[in-house]
Amino acid sequence: MPDRRSARIASVRDRLREENIDALVLCSLPNIRYLTGFSGTSALLLVTGNECRLVTDFRYETQVADEVGDLAIVRIEPVSLWTGLWDVLRKLPSAEVVGFESAHLVHRDFQRLLNDGARWQWRPQLNLVEDLRESKDEDEVALIAEAGRIATDALGSVLSLIQPGLSELQVAGLLEKALRDEGSEEAPFPPIVASGPRSALPHARASARVIERGDFLLLDFGAQHRGYCSDVTRTLVVGVPTAEQLEIYHIVRDANHVAAASVRPGMTGKAADSLARSYIERQGHGDEFGHSLGHGLGLEVHEAPRLARTAEGSLRQGAVVTIEPGIYRPGWGGVRIEDDVHLSANGPQILTNFSRELIEVA
Amino acid sequence: MPDRRSARIASVRDRLREENIDALVLCSLPNIRYLTGFSGTSALLLVTGNECRLVTDFRYETQVADEVGDLAIVRIEPVSLWTGLWDVLRKLPSAEVVGFESAHLVHRDFQRLLNDGARWQWRPQLNLVEDLRESKDEDEVALIAEAGRIATDALGSVLSLIQPGLSELQVAGLLEKALRDEGSEEAPFPPIVASGPRSALPHARASARVIERGDFLLLDFGAQHRGYCSDVTRTLVVGVPTAEQLEIYHIVRDANHVAAASVRPGMTGKAADSLARSYIERQGHGDEFGHSLGHGLGLEVHEAPRLARTAEGSLRQGAVVTIEPGIYRPGWGGVRIEDDVHLSANGPQILTNFSRELIEVA
Repeated sequence: MPDRRSARIASVRDRLREENIDALVLCSLPNIRYLTGFSGTSALLLVTGNECRLVTDFRYETQVADEVGDLAIVRIEPVSLWTGLWDVLRKLPSAEVVGFESAHLVHRDFQRLLNDGARWQWRPQLNLVEDLRESKDEDEVALIAEAGRIATDALGSVLSLIQPGLSELQVAGLLEKALRDEGSEEAPFPPIVASGPRSALPHARASARVIERGDFLLLDFGAQHRGYCSDVTRTLVVGVPTAEQLEIYHIVRDANHVAAASVRPGMTGKAADSLARSYIERQGHGDEFGHSLGHGLGLEVHEAPRLARTAEGSLRQGAVVTIEPGIYRPGWGGVRIEDDVHLSANGPQILTNFSRELIEVA
Repeated sequence: MPDRRSARIASVRDRLREENIDALVLCSLPNIRYLTGFSGTSALLLVTGNECRLVTDFRYETQVADEVGDLAIVRIEPVSLWTGLWDVLRKLPSAEVVGFESAHLVHRDFQRLLNDGARWQWRPQLNLVEDLRESKDEDEVALIAEAGRIATDALGSVLSLIQPGLSELQVAGLLEKALRDEGSEEAPFPPIVASGPRSALPHARASARVIERGDFLLLDFGAQHRGYCSDVTRTLVVGVPTAEQLEIYHIVRDANHVAAASVRPGMTGKAADSLARSYIERQGHGDEFGHSLGHGLGLEVHEAPRLARTAEGSLRQGAVVTIEPGIYRPGWGGVRIEDDVHLSANGPQILTNFSRELIEVA
């Protein structure tokens, strides 16, 4: 694969020139990983018109050299990352106006800019790197697709193990083990395992509830591959479904299908949301779809864009988004079916291929 | 158990009075959970001299009622948490000076205070609730001890499954499944599984490396119970250890023992760190113990206090801290042995009971 990082850094520099900023200090770890490849948990990055300087601590001395190579000049800082940053900045006499990440820098560190960094002019920036991350290149799409493959293969391998009498926590454990066996680096978020009436809670965690025959069993989980995430939901039924369960399930399945087949770059996030929402409304269940249709994913499991009633922005070509309609009835249960979709120039490309028919387990 | 939350909120009010602050806005989710019991992922909390107001979104409507009860007046906000907060604050005519969490509020939200919240005087606060959290009450210690029980029982149940030919990722999966089977809510952090030369990397993640006979196998992982975390490390050997492996292992084991038996409230974090460090130095391996001895844990897996060469503050009675000395030799391997210790009035009480002798697996 070609190394995309230099082109990404060049795009950041274009933005800095447009904004008349001499340099940018980054503290967001996903943004730093996107630009440099560094995956550690402690870093500050300075991007100027002609160089990158990365400050981290001794724990990452070997790793940072392997991951970053000669893309940035690395400084291992024994005291604090900020001490290292001031030292680096002081040696750049041409830097006067410096940007920082307003959505990531906490107030305490902002105070450092005003105190220790009083000799520079500070300019808050919003979404400068996030905007670049929104459109995925083909390498990124391939990594997300592999994370999707890991997730769906893991699901396939646990279906035969799920049975009444297991707790939701135990099912989460089976799924986590299967994800690791398929090669997931770690879980992008703790799997949601919600059975019976708990499947009506869109943000349930796995609990000690024991699964019973007749339950819906909602599994919402993901995998991670070289930093990139997948995010998949399937809702199973334990035993044989009732007519009502089937009816609700099929409405959600069809809403997922309509939206995943019709979502296009250039559409607003609101219009994309409406693809599934208007379908569910026409079936008379609009009040039971209480959340948004989806969100972007990549190095983070929630990133731009949003597919929601309040999202006026247009979806960009190259974005990868979740399509996750649901119907939830408090006390009875809920269904959600979620796929990851790449908004390619040739139309939507589904990255999470796994049956969307209602699967009966046990 | 008595409900500790009202007493905690009363302590916050004492601090506000001392600082001449009329109200405090909290955005840190662990701090909000500590004070109210709310475990959702979207909340702002306002504490005044005589009431608490919690703002969250529709996803948590049922959960917030169950968890918070009548401890706070809850507002479900359809637009943004901040819109709800301004509305609540405007109805409190006596609030003029309002504190906020400087270490948690990002710059973008700080700008909201200066713009939308210009009618109030804002006072940055550091560690106001974190200071309270540092000393655990007996209920909290019991919850951490249960999280420790889950972690050590899980470890015990996977030992017989570990063998050469498995990848580190597969071992992580076995461990994650065992943690769920024992009842862990979720993983406080992704387990570190580091074999052979990778055991020399103090912050390795699990990788695709296949475990070989003769390897050290370092497992650093935790469990969560009702929000409280444990954090445990054991280093195993795959097959029969060499004399050199045994020698290094025993030094770390003894450093762990000395520190866990001798750590006391009132000691500085630096003095605690030195308990293990000076022992390892006397054995001639000081240069190979490159990180700090430990950290506090509770609702977060890393919280106050620090046990480190640069930690001048005194350890408080009631704190729960990790004791995790290690020796690391690049290219050869490393050993770390970590326990969670409660600094009780009657001396250190180890909450993670599992053999510290070198265990041979496979």
